[in-house]
Amino acid sequence: MKQQEIPYKIYLEEQEMPKEWYNVRADMQKKPAPLLNPETLQPMGAKDLEGVFCAELVKQELDDNTAFIQIPDRIRDFYMMYRPSPLIRAYCLEEKMQTPAKIYYKFEGNNTSGSHKLNSAIAQAYYAKEQGLKGVTTETGAGQWGTALSMACAYFELDCQVFMVKLSHEQKPFRREVMRTYGASVTPSPSLDTEIGRKILAEYPDTNGSLGCAISEAVEAAVKQDGYRYVLGSVLNQVLLHQSIIGLETKLALDKYDIHPDMIIGCSGGGSNLGGLISPFVGEKLRGEADYRIIAVEPASCPSFTKGVFAYDYCDTGMVTPLSKMYTLGSRFMPAASHAGGLRYHGMSSILSQLYADGMMEARAVGQREIFEAAEQFARCEGILPAPESSHAIKVALDEAQKCKETGEEKTILFGLTGTGYFDLMAYGKYHDHQLSDHVPTDAEIQAGLAGLPKV
Amino acid sequence: MKQQEIPYKIYLEEQEMPKEWYNVRADMQKKPAPLLNPETLQPMGAKDLEGVFCAELVKQELDDNTAFIQIPDRIRDFYMMYRPSPLIRAYCLEEKMQTPAKIYYKFEGNNTSGSHKLNSAIAQAYYAKEQGLKGVTTETGAGQWGTALSMACAYFELDCQVFMVKLSHEQKPFRREVMRTYGASVTPSPSLDTEIGRKILAEYPDTNGSLGCAISEAVEAAVKQDGYRYVLGSVLNQVLLHQSIIGLETKLALDKYDIHPDMIIGCSGGGSNLGGLISPFVGEKLRGEADYRIIAVEPASCPSFTKGVFAYDYCDTGMVTPLSKMYTLGSRFMPAASHAGGLRYHGMSSILSQLYADGMMEARAVGQREIFEAAEQFARCEGILPAPESSHAIKVALDEAQKCKETGEEKTILFGLTGTGYFDLMAYGKYHDHQLSDHVPTDAEIQAGLAGLPKV
Repeated sequence: MKQQEIPYKIYLEEQEMPKEWYNVRADMQKKPAPLLNPETLQPMGAKDLEGVFCAELVKQELDDNTAFIQIPDRIRDFYMMYRPSPLIRAYCLEEKMQTPAKIYYKFEGNNTSGSHKLNSAIAQAYYAKEQGLKGVTTETGAGQWGTALSMACAYFELDCQVFMVKLSHEQKPFRREVMRTYGASVTPSPSLDTEIGRKILAEYPDTNGSLGCAISEAVEAAVKQDGYRYVLGSVLNQVLLHQSIIGLETKLALDKYDIHPDMIIGCSGGGSNLGGLISPFVGEKLRGEADYRIIAVEPASCPSFTKGVFAYDYCDTGMVTPLSKMYTLGSRFMPAASHAGGLRYHGMSSILSQLYADGMMEARAVGQREIFEAAEQFARCEGILPAPESSHAIKVALDEAQKCKETGEEKTILFGLTGTGYFDLMAYGKYHDHQLSDHVPTDAEIQAGLAGLPKV
Repeated sequence: MKQQEIPYKIYLEEQEMPKEWYNVRADMQKKPAPLLNPETLQPMGAKDLEGVFCAELVKQELDDNTAFIQIPDRIRDFYMMYRPSPLIRAYCLEEKMQTPAKIYYKFEGNNTSGSHKLNSAIAQAYYAKEQGLKGVTTETGAGQWGTALSMACAYFELDCQVFMVKLSHEQKPFRREVMRTYGASVTPSPSLDTEIGRKILAEYPDTNGSLGCAISEAVEAAVKQDGYRYVLGSVLNQVLLHQSIIGLETKLALDKYDIHPDMIIGCSGGGSNLGGLISPFVGEKLRGEADYRIIAVEPASCPSFTKGVFAYDYCDTGMVTPLSKMYTLGSRFMPAASHAGGLRYHGMSSILSQLYADGMMEARAVGQREIFEAAEQFARCEGILPAPESSHAIKVALDEAQKCKETGEEKTILFGLTGTGYFDLMAYGKYHDHQLSDHVPTDAEIQAGLAGLPKV
């Protein structure tokens, strides 16, 4: 047995679990730009948003100033079933790589949804229940969010209607069964169930679907049914707020052992995990108390930070949602069908977008073959089979650990391991069979997506 | 937040993890009967077994007297990546059921193999590596053991050849990909790669395979290749020894909070989990220090305890393995193809068989529809999606908790939650679509199986 003081897995005690979420906006001098009404182009207030979202969640969405928001007891009760999540020292990986780097990862996959998404799902279901609603609608891409929301709704006995990106629905038949086990209904998107779905299908009959399109359908379904609201698993300010539990626990665990990470790495699709993980660290950075290098990792096939623009755009393909100022590839951009690794969203959290624009973090795009290679290397050492999404962060963590090996620097690397890949084995199979290609959008494809940006 | 003193999840510290396995045979007055040579019918010694098994594992297999055996450091290092596993209080389930019972479960699913099988896989791979072998062969049914062994072999860089029961190979394509991710080769059994496989296929060309048949092939493959040995994930004494870590950790966690279980419930196929979980408790019972009710739960479609006989039998279908005295349905017994829930082995650990014959435990057989019903009820409260195997134990735990509700008794129920059901979603889907049937073998089928018992 190794004699080091730092255990393999740092588990906080249940009573140490944070009692409040942290709202990084409170410490941002430049606040994220407000949502705009898609018709009037005016900033939206609570009244405008409450038709779509639960009232309490709207408050959280619009609150740029309260730094700490109490986590209700019933949400904490649920969190207790799978949190605090472990912060793991990658001893085996370090040894196999022979790197002087110290590698830590916050593992959010030890729950049936298989990812961090449950942290916000249970919060959103709770507020829907408190408001006396019958149910909620949502979209899901890879299926993690849909599964998480199904679990949360089962717990509070709420109806749960999920629009699932068609490609994922076909590639991940078992995801549907998990959601059914938790009592949810699952519809492949685009569908004939909504006006916007019918319209998109008429225009693109062979489409594989996209998150942006599934969002449009879910919003329509929420608005048209009595007692329903729409919930979203990423992008929104409220989601980053709920996900701050990841970063808060991580910080507590690090502080316990006096560990200071030199860099913090997270995958970024809509920003839910990255935003949650880095929030308290960015807070320190914003307040001038500490400095960290922060790296967002996105797929080269859907590169909103590295190839997109910082502009107002629709959050969905159907252009029914509010406009958000964010790094975007354009709401009509659809990543190549060959892209297996999740993180397929055209836009990005407006909080993270503002932080990136302000130089608080950097971004890197990686190809899908290299992320599966990193995933396999990681799995064989550390045991855990990572989700392709999470493997974006692993890839960059491995790159940085390799640099340390070359320079001899003993850097401390922290990354977010957002989830497990048990439902991604078709993609792993394609990787094993050398059937994965790396489609990087051409400049013309990027320009075509951006050409659809609204004039604001 | 609940105010009770007992947390949702009792995690031992890493340094509290047991340093020795416990060998329950040392406390048994009536020892399990020795393995017999299938040709001479004489008890087998180390020399007879070392052609098939690793030398150190043979020692453990034959050691009826040493109560505690040290866990080597490198195995403990690996255990640290996923152990100690949590002992969980089912607060939410208790509340939803409105039962006065206190329900605890030891959860072994928080690792990529998805079950307790990894505890013995890493031990067996370690001893193979220490002996300087090139690789190991094995069989797998539902795929948990094969996955576990693949992970263990990847860690020690050993070749891993898995014969997978044909039905599971077809129903669980993604299991194959996990094993490939960890570098193993996977062959559906019966196969044309072995003599015994060809013979079985000639006789039963449409067979779905069975564990007994896959064992025959794996043993043949091990014996015929230089530098290979055969390893087995259940049934053997050595496996129960390694799995005692489950029970030892459980006992430590219970003692920490002064909890005394009234009953201990585990699913039983070959006995690896049940044997591991109950070992230290049975030890106390054997030494007259404490009493517990112990319940083995098996599928009604493969009821070795409840419908089998206690007799010497082959461990495999091909009749190439040693004879073991155990509760058995006959080595040619094959559970119905419609049986989805794992635990398909015709026999039973000889340790558990002896304990059952001596009245130290009871057994119950349950149907597969009721186990999926229990699984779904459990998942919706406790979050975790259980493996069908584990759900046998859940079913009986729910029954017992329901009895407490009716009688008002505040019993403490402990059960083993051996693993997760992420690779069993085809079976869950069949359950949702009402396509699962309960095939219970007829008396004639039982008699046909038993007619093949060797005359010893």
